[in-house]
Amino acid sequence: MIRIGVIGYGYWGPNIVRNFCGLDGARVLKVCDQSEKALNRVMQAYPSIETTKNAAEIVVSPDIDAVAVVTPVWSHYELAKAALENGKHVFVEKPFTSTSAQAQELIELAEKKNLKIMVDHTFLFTGAVRKIQELIDGGVLGELYYYDALRVNLGLFQHDINVIWDLAPHDLSIMDYLIKEKAEAIVATGERHLNGLEDVAFITVYFPQNVIAHINVNWLSPVKLRTTLIGGEKKMLVWNDLEADEKIKVYDKGVKKVTNPERVHDMLVSYRTGDMWAPQVERTEALQVEMRYFLDCIQSNKTPFNDGHAGLRVVRMLEAADKSVRSRGAAVQL
Amino acid sequence: MIRIGVIGYGYWGPNIVRNFCGLDGARVLKVCDQSEKALNRVMQAYPSIETTKNAAEIVVSPDIDAVAVVTPVWSHYELAKAALENGKHVFVEKPFTSTSAQAQELIELAEKKNLKIMVDHTFLFTGAVRKIQELIDGGVLGELYYYDALRVNLGLFQHDINVIWDLAPHDLSIMDYLIKEKAEAIVATGERHLNGLEDVAFITVYFPQNVIAHINVNWLSPVKLRTTLIGGEKKMLVWNDLEADEKIKVYDKGVKKVTNPERVHDMLVSYRTGDMWAPQVERTEALQVEMRYFLDCIQSNKTPFNDGHAGLRVVRMLEAADKSVRSRGAAVQL
Amino acid sequence: MIRIGVIGYGYWGPNIVRNFCGLDGARVLKVCDQSEKALNRVMQAYPSIETTKNAAEIVVSPDIDAVAVVTPVWSHYELAKAALENGKHVFVEKPFTSTSAQAQELIELAEKKNLKIMVDHTFLFTGAVRKIQELIDGGVLGELYYYDALRVNLGLFQHDINVIWDLAPHDLSIMDYLIKEKAEAIVATGERHLNGLEDVAFITVYFPQNVIAHINVNWLSPVKLRTTLIGGEKKMLVWNDLEADEKIKVYDKGVKKVTNPERVHDMLVSYRTGDMWAPQVERTEALQVEMRYFLDCIQSNKTPFNDGHAGLRVVRMLEAADKSVRSRGAAVQL
Amino acid sequence: MIRIGVIGYGYWGPNIVRNFCGLDGARVLKVCDQSEKALNRVMQAYPSIETTKNAAEIVVSPDIDAVAVVTPVWSHYELAKAALENGKHVFVEKPFTSTSAQAQELIELAEKKNLKIMVDHTFLFTGAVRKIQELIDGGVLGELYYYDALRVNLGLFQHDINVIWDLAPHDLSIMDYLIKEKAEAIVATGERHLNGLEDVAFITVYFPQNVIAHINVNWLSPVKLRTTLIGGEKKMLVWNDLEADEKIKVYDKGVKKVTNPERVHDMLVSYRTGDMWAPQVERTEALQVEMRYFLDCIQSNKTPFNDGHAGLRVVRMLEAADKSVRSRGAAVQL
Repeated sequence: MIRIGVIGYGYWGPNIVRNFCGLDGARVLKVCDQSEKALNRVMQAYPSIETTKNAAEIVVSPDIDAVAVVTPVWSHYELAKAALENGKHVFVEKPFTSTSAQAQELIELAEKKNLKIMVDHTFLFTGAVRKIQELIDGGVLGELYYYDALRVNLGLFQHDINVIWDLAPHDLSIMDYLIKEKAEAIVATGERHLNGLEDVAFITVYFPQNVIAHINVNWLSPVKLRTTLIGGEKKMLVWNDLEADEKIKVYDKGVKKVTNPERVHDMLVSYRTGDMWAPQVERTEALQVEMRYFLDCIQSNKTPFNDGHAGLRVVRMLEAADKSVRSRGAAVQL
Repeated sequence: MIRIGVIGYGYWGPNIVRNFCGLDGARVLKVCDQSEKALNRVMQAYPSIETTKNAAEIVVSPDIDAVAVVTPVWSHYELAKAALENGKHVFVEKPFTSTSAQAQELIELAEKKNLKIMVDHTFLFTGAVRKIQELIDGGVLGELYYYDALRVNLGLFQHDINVIWDLAPHDLSIMDYLIKEKAEAIVATGERHLNGLEDVAFITVYFPQNVIAHINVNWLSPVKLRTTLIGGEKKMLVWNDLEADEKIKVYDKGVKKVTNPERVHDMLVSYRTGDMWAPQVERTEALQVEMRYFLDCIQSNKTPFNDGHAGLRVVRMLEAADKSVRSRGAAVQL
Repeated sequence: MIRIGVIGYGYWGPNIVRNFCGLDGARVLKVCDQSEKALNRVMQAYPSIETTKNAAEIVVSPDIDAVAVVTPVWSHYELAKAALENGKHVFVEKPFTSTSAQAQELIELAEKKNLKIMVDHTFLFTGAVRKIQELIDGGVLGELYYYDALRVNLGLFQHDINVIWDLAPHDLSIMDYLIKEKAEAIVATGERHLNGLEDVAFITVYFPQNVIAHINVNWLSPVKLRTTLIGGEKKMLVWNDLEADEKIKVYDKGVKKVTNPERVHDMLVSYRTGDMWAPQVERTEALQVEMRYFLDCIQSNKTPFNDGHAGLRVVRMLEAADKSVRSRGAAVQL
Repeated sequence: MIRIGVIGYGYWGPNIVRNFCGLDGARVLKVCDQSEKALNRVMQAYPSIETTKNAAEIVVSPDIDAVAVVTPVWSHYELAKAALENGKHVFVEKPFTSTSAQAQELIELAEKKNLKIMVDHTFLFTGAVRKIQELIDGGVLGELYYYDALRVNLGLFQHDINVIWDLAPHDLSIMDYLIKEKAEAIVATGERHLNGLEDVAFITVYFPQNVIAHINVNWLSPVKLRTTLIGGEKKMLVWNDLEADEKIKVYDKGVKKVTNPERVHDMLVSYRTGDMWAPQVERTEALQVEMRYFLDCIQSNKTPFNDGHAGLRVVRMLEAADKSVRSRGAAVQL
């Protein structure tokens, strides 16, 4: 039985608590939040869970084995550090930390103490991303050409981080997971219109071998869109996460290089078009799968693939994107 | 009666000929193309139009008042120059020229000769763009925040120009038309996968006063998408050009700056959400409207808004995008 | 404080309990279900609510003021009758009863005892239906022409009622609510393919003054569709209940009778086409609104519009549809 | 070389002429129309085709081998009869005739004279219908359960026929083609709102072995919809004819009869859900395929599958639908 303390019971915390409560092998002992109202909601829904306004009660408690940090990003480092120093495994909300230096320090601390860090890149546990990974790793798409994600909606509710830190971690963690090579450089552009933080941004990520990724994030869109195009040599796919039933469509479409040297001034590329196929996608709640994996990593002493290093890679890309935006698109090497 | 010569009868030329033929006040005298097959199609469809393989027959003919240049972009400059030197008004396919120097020279030549140049930015004559202009100019959207265009499909059929020069002129000419201020700088990224030309590209255009525009063009998309988001202070709109009936949707949605200094650490922005409205959009064929306007500009000695200067601004942005792509996103001032 | 007993904790019962628990002025005292598992779920979620397997404990309890009957339709009559006989108000799941005779008897019993019956026609409390009612009653649509509902999905999970009794009560109750005149006759067709019950059915409802309604219900559809077209003299609307944001679209489209007697052999009808408009629709949970209304009707001694008579009208239409299906479409007068 | 005369050059006639002109082996000699304007359009587009206002000139001409009758339905019988009597093959617009007696007479006349009748059920030659036929005949869908077609739009432009005769022939001819057994009976309902003709109608067609078909036709719909659901034992499909690229979607979804007699009071049906697949659909213009087939049937002396008998079956269903509508849904045997 792994005993859990949860710090933060705002928007996402209730999902963390609910999912841990539904798992055999875990027990949520205590929840911390600054808000009286939030703690009342905990007490009403889970009379057996203790509550506190003092995070220290959780990070030092000898009864707690693992701490979930579900607070704003600026507080992740201090809380995770204290938890690790007190011998607790940590599950940290994305983005992992505010700086790559903080992430690096937490990784080293966890390794020294032989503790697990898991960064909550929830999307990696969705049926959609797991199906896409299966298609890429199984060679169905062939050599990758590009990854192009659109994640926009009306949603300027942050006042400590910009739209890049709010929305892009999803796509950065997914592309980091799906594309085997590591990102080389980032170019980002964006603009501020309301509260001094970028509310619209466009991020290009360069990978080796001409693979290019792009993320369009926007807090000022009248419509919610969650569409990712992935182009490969053999097949191309469209992932529309807002579709209830056909989230992933795989197209048997492509272009072929024509190498006939005599036709060099004619058409150099030929087309191929065929059927479309929408594979069934697993519907299990991603967070549940992720948390079972967290418990399993602790119990079996395995390193999760969404560990501190994965979290660090995303933070580095966010830092690079911020830096690039401020210099109007200058490429930042990773 | 304005007598027209048309050079180029490939993909777009037949639309030019058909539309001129349908207008009172114009007569197509001669069509030129290198391909025997193309000329046969002209003869079959329009027995009264003369055909030739020699463009010079059109540009020097004393019977021709205006020349439509509907050929690949690398030939625009020579053909338009010859036509202007021979005293003919010119209608030039987009993009105007291969370089801004060429564009500049043609503009000066036309001004010296008091001849009209019209660049075929057809989209400016669609019901959709005219309706959007009406909404922007009428203050319905309020102060503009961003312009974000997606123009992707499977379509690598060019071997002399990249995807930027193929697809972006549409969006660059539209944003140049809709946004009153002139673009300041461009950042572009992209990648080549097949024939040595960029087939995927992402272009950011910076305008004064924090207005930012973005264009996503892609020849390797399995699906055809033509969606533009425009965000304004008062309202936001989505233009989906592939919709048959509701091309433009205007959303009464937005965010408001909250200036209460006491709540500075709380929510700084409030939301507004209301009805959506899809204004009826004129369905007249854009090219017909444009050509009637071309005739009218000649007859009334008016300068078209899609003149050489408009064409030049687009060519400058294309040059800047190319330059930026090659330096991985370095901003290029306009 | 109105004290509630809930009978039935299967698919819908939990929503009833949750919503009553969230309302001031109501308290759920006891929940009854035959299934041990269901009662365990009650105890876990609501430790303070008593549970029982014996419905009689609820219907005779002197501590209970109102009973919610959320069981299969064949049991509604017995349970509601017992509750009314014991002086309790009743809230009954749709369809109200298995026969119109039962419904009639319950109505008379309630009237005699001065108790309220509310039939759970939840859809009448959705933002969408209330907005449509507002548009119809406000004269926006003009004189009604037709009401055409499509409600299909993969869903053959009933073995006591056919697809008509399962899905059509939604649409029958909505059209009964929206159309002021009372239905005159019903024609229905359908077919059985799997378990001896109709799984596909098509119902036409005739109203006075040429108003016609149609419902298409199907348990064997590969896709889930929930679309209603409503045509009026002035405007027409499409209600797509699966749309997240634009559930209702009002079209300024129509046809006009041309009465020029000289043109009697030419076009008799002219078209009108204009803007489309998607009014914002209230998102409050319908069931919550309905239950607050139930409490309010009891407290203020008001007759709900979704009372036993409304329930009876729907049951009569269901009976008529069944009868018509069995005689291959013979019209059944109401 | 088959020499063609075309009677009628209104909405559909120009497509007939254009397609015959594009085929080797056919030559359009003469076109007839009552309207001077229409004939001018012929002369402008096809200077070599003769024109006339007198249909007799076509039906008696010794130079003409086959006549295309593209006029309003009330005139089909007289024109086709005259053409057949003069030894000409006939291609007749749908619906074939105004009455089944007329159709019967034309069939007998053609058989006596050994001439071909082809009824223009164009949809049977679309890539979509041919693909669906392939799926049904190949056993992919398994035993058929239902066929449900929606064909609605704003379009009340007929003043001699109602919405059933205008729109339903498409679906009736398709279902007659796809479903191997012959229709047994028809139930139809509908209503008149504007010009004394049904503008909304709902048609049920009963086939042997519990196969049921339904057609929803409406001239007063604010939106254009062309969606057909086809349910089979093994797979189900959705055909959306307005989709540009994915017209047909085949769903690996279904329900299974559970025959375990012990569970007879539990769930009787189990679900199956799997991938979706959109086969590529041929894009060749249907009319061109049909006309090539017309020429081929004449040259090879083959009986077309869309012959007079097919046309007659559709007319019989239209007559039955009209009769049923007038008696409010009484079933009419075929």
